[in-house]
Amino acid sequence: MTELIQKPLRKGEQTRAAILEVALSIASREGLEGLTIGVLADRMAMSKSGVFAHFGSREDLQSEVLRLYHQHFEQDVFYPSLREPRGLPRLESLFARWVARVSMEIASGCIYISGAVEYDDRPGAIREQLVEMVRLWQLALQRAATQSIQEGQLPPDTDADQLVFEMYGLVLALHHDARFIKRPGSVERAQAGFARLMNSLHHAASSSASTAASKEPAKKHTKPNTKPLA
Amino acid sequence: MTELIQKPLRKGEQTRAAILEVALSIASREGLEGLTIGVLADRMAMSKSGVFAHFGSREDLQSEVLRLYHQHFEQDVFYPSLREPRGLPRLESLFARWVARVSMEIASGCIYISGAVEYDDRPGAIREQLVEMVRLWQLALQRAATQSIQEGQLPPDTDADQLVFEMYGLVLALHHDARFIKRPGSVERAQAGFARLMNSLHHAASSSASTAASKEPAKKHTKPNTKPLA
Repeated sequence: MTELIQKPLRKGEQTRAAILEVALSIASREGLEGLTIGVLADRMAMSKSGVFAHFGSREDLQSEVLRLYHQHFEQDVFYPSLREPRGLPRLESLFARWVARVSMEIASGCIYISGAVEYDDRPGAIREQLVEMVRLWQLALQRAATQSIQEGQLPPDTDADQLVFEMYGLVLALHHDARFIKRPGSVERAQAGFARLMNSLHHAASSSASTAASKEPAKKHTKPNTKPLA
Repeated sequence: MTELIQKPLRKGEQTRAAILEVALSIASREGLEGLTIGVLADRMAMSKSGVFAHFGSREDLQSEVLRLYHQHFEQDVFYPSLREPRGLPRLESLFARWVARVSMEIASGCIYISGAVEYDDRPGAIREQLVEMVRLWQLALQRAATQSIQEGQLPPDTDADQLVFEMYGLVLALHHDARFIKRPGSVERAQAGFARLMNSLHHAASSSASTAASKEPAKKHTKPNTKPLA
């Protein structure tokens, strides 16, 4: 593969994209810190300098891998959910597609979840980039929850941040039990937890409404859209 | 410290215990895989062979550290909760003390939680030991949940495994948001999530009871015991 060293721009973007996809699969399995230029060069049957011709440093490579992961996540989870109506249908779609994606990743691991542990004590640019992406994702969930309240599909006193915290917990528990404990049925538990969470918001609202006898009972919650992704 | 090499049994158990506590603090921060004989020897200002005199191999050391962590966990969370009455008070104590412990560990990290990610793809004796400990802990929670049902403090149709899954999710979300995102208020969110979870079980039971009009409404849930540990 010395021709890649001599002519790094031949096949240019195509080669770079192929290297990145392999790098992503290494990082999913070994963690971002397990991704080194040497491991990647081995897997690509390239020289280290061949890989360096495409990525200036290991940190650049890790950063590009994170960006690629984020793109995949957006394509699988975020953009398809934007096609759902604003409010609860979108929130339910975000959760259902997130669960579907994490359950597809059980064999490899979710970089957002594994990365959170890998980088919780490791300051630097990669940690900052990862925190930023996870924050963006939590913000997308929070926005959909807030819109569900605005649309009257969730009770007005719903704490959107608390809702996102608990949704995140369900997906973390799915990742933990399915990937570490290897316990079957974890996907169904995450889905059941979300259904219970949604229902409990309405129950809390309707019992405070009946106590105060001052509000309309909250609209009945529709069944969460937990159908598998096409 | 060459005297330790020549006379490895002088001060014997005391030195070994001191090394283990330092090893635990390294493993909490760097992960069990970050714990090497070399790093430990540096921190103890001992020679590597001095450390080897106490632990035959790196895996033995990791295994002992895990056992020590398990002991600390039992002392902080499990045994004090056994002093609470069987059933809901015990379940609530297990959760409250677990949350208190994880919130004390925010600066260092919980080995059960970090280890789950570190070892999810790394087969071997340490993974097996860690899975066994986490399973034991989940079983203790499950037993307390089942006893709460038997005592009539949780509705008879409560799914104890689902309850444990969701409790685990709340603590994972606490660890994630407090340690990785560094978001304030995560302890309170975990506690609020548990209170809502408990209430929703009773609501689910009372609404199915009022639908069927065949059962007494479930007992009112008492406020979870989320007072800080003494």
